[in-house]
Amino acid sequence: MTPPLESYIRNIPDFPIPGIQFKDITTLLRDGPALQQAINVFIERYRHQRINAVVAIESRGFIFGAPLAYALGIGLVPVRKVGKLPADTYKLEYALEYGTATLEIHKDAFAPGARVVVIDDLLATGGTIAAACALAETAGATVVEAAFLIELSFLAGREKLGQRQIYSQITY
Amino acid sequence: MTPPLESYIRNIPDFPIPGIQFKDITTLLRDGPALQQAINVFIERYRHQRINAVVAIESRGFIFGAPLAYALGIGLVPVRKVGKLPADTYKLEYALEYGTATLEIHKDAFAPGARVVVIDDLLATGGTIAAACALAETAGATVVEAAFLIELSFLAGREKLGQRQIYSQITY
Repeated sequence: MTPPLESYIRNIPDFPIPGIQFKDITTLLRDGPALQQAINVFIERYRHQRINAVVAIESRGFIFGAPLAYALGIGLVPVRKVGKLPADTYKLEYALEYGTATLEIHKDAFAPGARVVVIDDLLATGGTIAAACALAETAGATVVEAAFLIELSFLAGREKLGQRQIYSQITY
Repeated sequence: MTPPLESYIRNIPDFPIPGIQFKDITTLLRDGPALQQAINVFIERYRHQRINAVVAIESRGFIFGAPLAYALGIGLVPVRKVGKLPADTYKLEYALEYGTATLEIHKDAFAPGARVVVIDDLLATGGTIAAACALAETAGATVVEAAFLIELSFLAGREKLGQRQIYSQITY
């Protein structure tokens, strides 16, 4: 029996800036059984939902999205920071606490009618996942759910996702 | 029978700068069977080599390293760009064509005696993988092999890796 996944997450005070309690997942990732458990939870959740692709947000979303896509035998579509994707893209700029960020997705990422899960490691203020979901929808996909290992519920990121379904394994 | 993996890779001329033929793997990633095939090749290669962890280089190395670690039931250790890892790290600066880059690994990434594979999507000039291998070794690991989906052999990246073992699925 593996201990609860929460016990593998390390709290780092004052990173990256004073006052932030950073949730370090590398202590979970480096443990083989804990990593398998975290990914198996996603696999079991989406195995029977007729998902056609996993949309993973650069870069820690790749860590959970790629094994999920692999295990389900479906494609992986990266949402990346601006300038990284080489073919024609849709771009979306969104607000951060200080300044803005821009994400991109390839215009030809999806087959028609694709049903997708959008995945990242952490739901914080929600700006990144809201932009990624909007990009996937612009590229023609239906977002079945947004999925996270961790949700920081006190930051109310869910409110940015409107009516979309949200799933997180661990909530603080 | 899946077509050869090479047929899923898209060539993008003049990205990110004129004269570069960019190998776009997103057309492979978005195809479920092709993605599975690429990852299965790594799994079969390392299944019986007593590997204890997969070291994956941010960010596209995560796409191949995470499913490999998941399938082998071993840990995943990220090598990341500077400033992303929250605990104590080893840092290594290395030369790029123009300027330098710095990578980091957590000092406590490995259990004693760890045997690891270091993985990235692409071997080009070799500076990034050489730095990642050196970081893993500084943190106490033995690098069994450096693994890539693609190797651009005309850039002679192998020469930067000294006596280390190297494996690539597709060579241009």
